[in-house]
Amino acid sequence: MTIAEQVAQIAHEARQASFVLSRLSTRVKNELLLAMAEALEQQAPHLIAENAKDLEEGKQKGLSSAMLDRLMLDAKRISAMADALREVAALPDPVGEVTKMWKRPNNLMVGKMRIPLGVIGIIFEARPNVTADAAALCLKAGNAVILRGGKEAINSNRAIAAILREAMVSKGVPAGALALIPFTDRQGVLEMLKQEECIDLIIPRGGEGLIRFVTENSRIPVIKHYKGVCHIFVDESADFDMAERIIINAKTQRPGVCNALETLLIHESVAAAFIPRIASILGGMQVELRGDERFRALAPQAKPASEEDWYAEYLELILACRVVDDLDQAIDHINRYGSLHTESIITSDYGRAQRFIREVNSSCVVVNASTRFADGNQLGLGAEIGISTTKLHSFGPMGLEDLTTTKFIVYGDGQVRE
Amino acid sequence: MTIAEQVAQIAHEARQASFVLSRLSTRVKNELLLAMAEALEQQAPHLIAENAKDLEEGKQKGLSSAMLDRLMLDAKRISAMADALREVAALPDPVGEVTKMWKRPNNLMVGKMRIPLGVIGIIFEARPNVTADAAALCLKAGNAVILRGGKEAINSNRAIAAILREAMVSKGVPAGALALIPFTDRQGVLEMLKQEECIDLIIPRGGEGLIRFVTENSRIPVIKHYKGVCHIFVDESADFDMAERIIINAKTQRPGVCNALETLLIHESVAAAFIPRIASILGGMQVELRGDERFRALAPQAKPASEEDWYAEYLELILACRVVDDLDQAIDHINRYGSLHTESIITSDYGRAQRFIREVNSSCVVVNASTRFADGNQLGLGAEIGISTTKLHSFGPMGLEDLTTTKFIVYGDGQVRE
Repeated sequence: MTIAEQVAQIAHEARQASFVLSRLSTRVKNELLLAMAEALEQQAPHLIAENAKDLEEGKQKGLSSAMLDRLMLDAKRISAMADALREVAALPDPVGEVTKMWKRPNNLMVGKMRIPLGVIGIIFEARPNVTADAAALCLKAGNAVILRGGKEAINSNRAIAAILREAMVSKGVPAGALALIPFTDRQGVLEMLKQEECIDLIIPRGGEGLIRFVTENSRIPVIKHYKGVCHIFVDESADFDMAERIIINAKTQRPGVCNALETLLIHESVAAAFIPRIASILGGMQVELRGDERFRALAPQAKPASEEDWYAEYLELILACRVVDDLDQAIDHINRYGSLHTESIITSDYGRAQRFIREVNSSCVVVNASTRFADGNQLGLGAEIGISTTKLHSFGPMGLEDLTTTKFIVYGDGQVRE
Repeated sequence: MTIAEQVAQIAHEARQASFVLSRLSTRVKNELLLAMAEALEQQAPHLIAENAKDLEEGKQKGLSSAMLDRLMLDAKRISAMADALREVAALPDPVGEVTKMWKRPNNLMVGKMRIPLGVIGIIFEARPNVTADAAALCLKAGNAVILRGGKEAINSNRAIAAILREAMVSKGVPAGALALIPFTDRQGVLEMLKQEECIDLIIPRGGEGLIRFVTENSRIPVIKHYKGVCHIFVDESADFDMAERIIINAKTQRPGVCNALETLLIHESVAAAFIPRIASILGGMQVELRGDERFRALAPQAKPASEEDWYAEYLELILACRVVDDLDQAIDHINRYGSLHTESIITSDYGRAQRFIREVNSSCVVVNASTRFADGNQLGLGAEIGISTTKLHSFGPMGLEDLTTTKFIVYGDGQVRE
């Protein structure tokens, strides 16, 4: 069989399996996940041996030690992977929830019920734990899943998928419900992106290059996560201590992630009081500041910011800083340069807090808290399959509910249309 | 300017206008819609004159009389168009609704709030009333709208869009909020489908050819409406009078629409009692029957059904009929041949009604009522912008809510992440 035929067959088997999965009870799905967790731990020695092949090849190819560390599996990491499956088993099942129901004048009862999406394709790069995580979330929401991991982790991914699939089949679920595309070149991805009759959603997890490649070549809907250029606006009524604590947390607690702070906007009327103070603290923490003219007048140590700085997702200890006239100018700045990810206002003014919540349409809009809360677990979704920065289907951190859709259900007693 | 540049500029202006629209209060949006309705009626003579140009060109091109009738605008139709705008004004505004809210252990209050999608592109074929309808629904949900109608109605569409835009601008909304792409060839569509930075969603309304063209060429998410192969399953416990009434309604009340019945499935144990009766009634109503062997054994007047008949969306007085062993076989048939549109079971058995509701994952799943209720107005959505037969974002009839997304809102009092 050609690569195209093999991928088409995997997709077809996943579609068939999805009909079985969508009917499984919550109890059976949870048993499945617990059996998978058990199997991962039991077969840890085999998994570590397969992982060693990837590590050996990675060393020969000259992967960085950070990359090799992300690739590496040991008993502790395998236990963590298994525990993640157990946590998914403990989450509430979104399938079958009736999100609302109403009565029509002709007595039809009409409702909307959550159902699985069907078949979900996950395209990811190096980390092998994504295999287990993503599979567990898709299965819990009643979906079949087709995984396509990067070539660096192919032996580890194959072993993990085989262990999970075996545990699944032992519980009577068709093997097609969890597949790994065995081709790690771009053709494997391209063939997967053509299966619009069998795959309902593609979630790419990785760098912007991967996401753009997938988006441009897919006939299947794609949930995209581009960059996070997160803003904090310090309003004139802000509590300075709170602002300081939140800015430091948002910028420095983990600067390399998408919900870290990248641009600080400060209300003109508190600029003179707040800027010298925050600039000195951030400077002491090795944060490089790049400011507009009004900011630099109060913090001469800052470098001048260029137009590109307002668009920048630094992912390191650099912060763009601008003084704005008022809330309107802050919102205009966010609309113009933002990435629709996460923005926070620090204020003690009720009206401006409410205006910010209403008028800023990023995926997370926050009052008086760190942007770092823009995360599925932190927001209480229980798990996170990704973060969407585009607005269709899901916007912001995605949990189990985002792996479902709703159908209309209609209870009648003989109604016909006039 | 080239066509590409002009379309890019329209899209850019729409994006800018969308920031204004998303902040409008419900009251202002309703005033806008009422002003538009008023303007359409006041300028009816101008509109009729522009429409006459389309009709004249249509006649010269040899359009069918049915096509010409769909194109034609008179005072009555213009009033109906205006009334449709008034009805949209009367609908509840989905924007700002907090669909849920919960408290985190650290006292963060986290909620989800409905917001506009942003900019919506509608690509449609001949009927000029779509211009006003679609624009009204998009604007009510706080979205800018870019319309691209067919060449047959270009003069009418231009006139309608100009009237609506003028009414809008008189209320202080930027003209970019409602645009008509002035190019009616495929290049106009193609350029529109490239504006992924400025357009959030494309809704094509028209035949399958248009929808496939749009889907294959779009970098922007598309909500698709393919065919409706709707099924009715007559269970062994069905009330025959009810089954008869519903089947007749679903097949014959308006056979040319997507929620009309196309395939009838009958439980084997009632085949002998029910088939001669329903076959005779449908025959008397000029419905051509195409059955499998078991069906034809009881209704010899039926033609033999081929494999293609099970996939067919006839949109006319033809009905495919099959006898099935039980509910499982009925569900398998629907999964295999169905189009995920609408399916109904006729039953008096509680357990099978519930199983059908749970296990059939089409966009509308109905017990004891006609498939013809699969319609936004009939289900109580207040209006319908389209019907989605794919599962992302929306599934089934789409109302105002489907033109929105949700953002996370987070109320804190100084929380930072540990």
